[in-house]
Order: sequence, then structure tokens, then C-alpha cells
Amino acid sequence: MTQDWLDHVKWDERGLAPAIAQEVGTGDVLMVAWMNRDALKRTVETGEAVYWSRSRNRLWHKGEESGHVQKVHDLRIDCDEDVILLKVEQIDGIACHTGRHSCFFQKFEGTADDGRWTTVEPVLKDPHKIYK
Amino acid sequence: MTQDWLDHVKWDERGLAPAIAQEVGTGDVLMVAWMNRDALKRTVETGEAVYWSRSRNRLWHKGEESGHVQKVHDLRIDCDEDVILLKVEQIDGIACHTGRHSCFFQKFEGTADDGRWTTVEPVLKDPHKIYK
Repeated sequence: MTQDWLDHVKWDERGLAPAIAQEVGTGDVLMVAWMNRDALKRTVETGEAVYWSRSRNRLWHKGEESGHVQKVHDLRIDCDEDVILLKVEQIDGIACHTGRHSCFFQKFEGTADDGRWTTVEPVLKDPHKIYK
Repeated sequence: MTQDWLDHVKWDERGLAPAIAQEVGTGDVLMVAWMNRDALKRTVETGEAVYWSRSRNRLWHKGEESGHVQKVHDLRIDCDEDVILLKVEQIDGIACHTGRHSCFFQKFEGTADDGRWTTVEPVLKDPHKIYK
């Protein structure tokens, strides 16, 4: 029995590492959140994404309120061992708190001197109906 | 003429934001690096990924040494406006300094109490031949 694999991750000075959730099948990058040691351990134990909420300062089982749970199919770390990549099945197809599929719904358009971020993905569910 | 789009990004206390490079076509997440305001501006100006190297403390035009340039097809930010997502064409199909396709070549196997990270992607090119 060894939990050495948790020490293998190079946690930053706050004890955190960024975690990318990528959708199985589509390959869409859904969101980026943070994990600490406990969050990563709980993710493996439950098979569902558990992050560390920096705003609430506690473990955050993604979907605990919204039902938009992420079932983990694959878990990776990068060559520097300081970024985590999860391949997930996104329940209800909604990862973003805005009710969109992905958090990356703002696309750059234009040039460096005349640029803008344009919203290019629809709201699939009214956030007021997600968080009651 | 406006560069307001650069101020739209919520740079952290170091003036940085994480940037994910995802391969067009395959959808593979290739790597995560950091950008500052200048790096993002240069990325848009050149159409190729320019990061901020924290170790070298300077702008890093990805591929400047290796030739493994990333041509940018799409540029996004997330709902919190603090993470950047690039969809790129990866020249030579090698993003990682280890000579692998992706930096995320270490896969978790086992259980929380008996886990390990296993290398699951081959080296496509000897790093000694990449960096001469």
C-alpha cells in the first residue's frame, strides 16, 4: 500500500496544481480548476472529479449542487508533474456555471491592435435553474 | 484601435495566466505553459504560440530551438478569464521536451492506496537530436 503517487505531483507553494477537465469522446476542454492532495485522492477514490475551491476554501465535489458531475475515465500528469489532466464524462453535458457546455466560450477575434473576445457557445440551461 | 482585449484577461499577481495548447484535429492536450500580456500579444501578432518562460524569465517562442512551432488556429479564454486555451497545429507532432507528442504521457494506474504513474506514450524523437 502506497500513496507515494500523491507525492509525485509537484504541488505549488499553496499546495495546489491546476487540473484540466477534458471531455471523453469530443475531446473538448471543459474547464480548469485546482486540486490539492486531498482533492486528487478523493477523485481517485470516488471516480468523480473533486477539486479544491479557492473561493470557498474547501473540497468541491464538482456537481454537488448542480448535478453536473464529472466521471473520470483517465487521469494524467505532465512532464513537469505540476499539471493534472482528467478525461471525464460530463453529466448533462454542462461544465460551466454559466450553463454552457464548456467554460472556454469566449473566442478571440480580430488583430492585436483591434481585438475582442466574442461569446461563441450557447447557454444550454439557465443558471438560475441549475443552482436553486 | 484597441488593445483592451489584453486587459480583459485576469492576470495573476505575477502577471501570468496558464495557457493550454490543444492539438487541432486530434483534440489532444499537448502542454500547459504560462503567458503574460506580451506573450499573448505576440501570439496574436505572429499566429504562433509565444509563452513566458518562468525558468528563463523571458518570452519563449515555442519551437525557437526545436523547430516544434505551434501554429494557432483558435484562441479562447474561460468564464473566469484567467485561463487561455489555444488550438494549435503542432509542427512535427512533438510538443514535449522529452520528444513525446504530448506532455501528458504519465497515466495514473491502480487505486488511491496503491497507485502509480505509468509512462504510456513513446518518445518520437531523441531529445538530444531536438536540442543540439
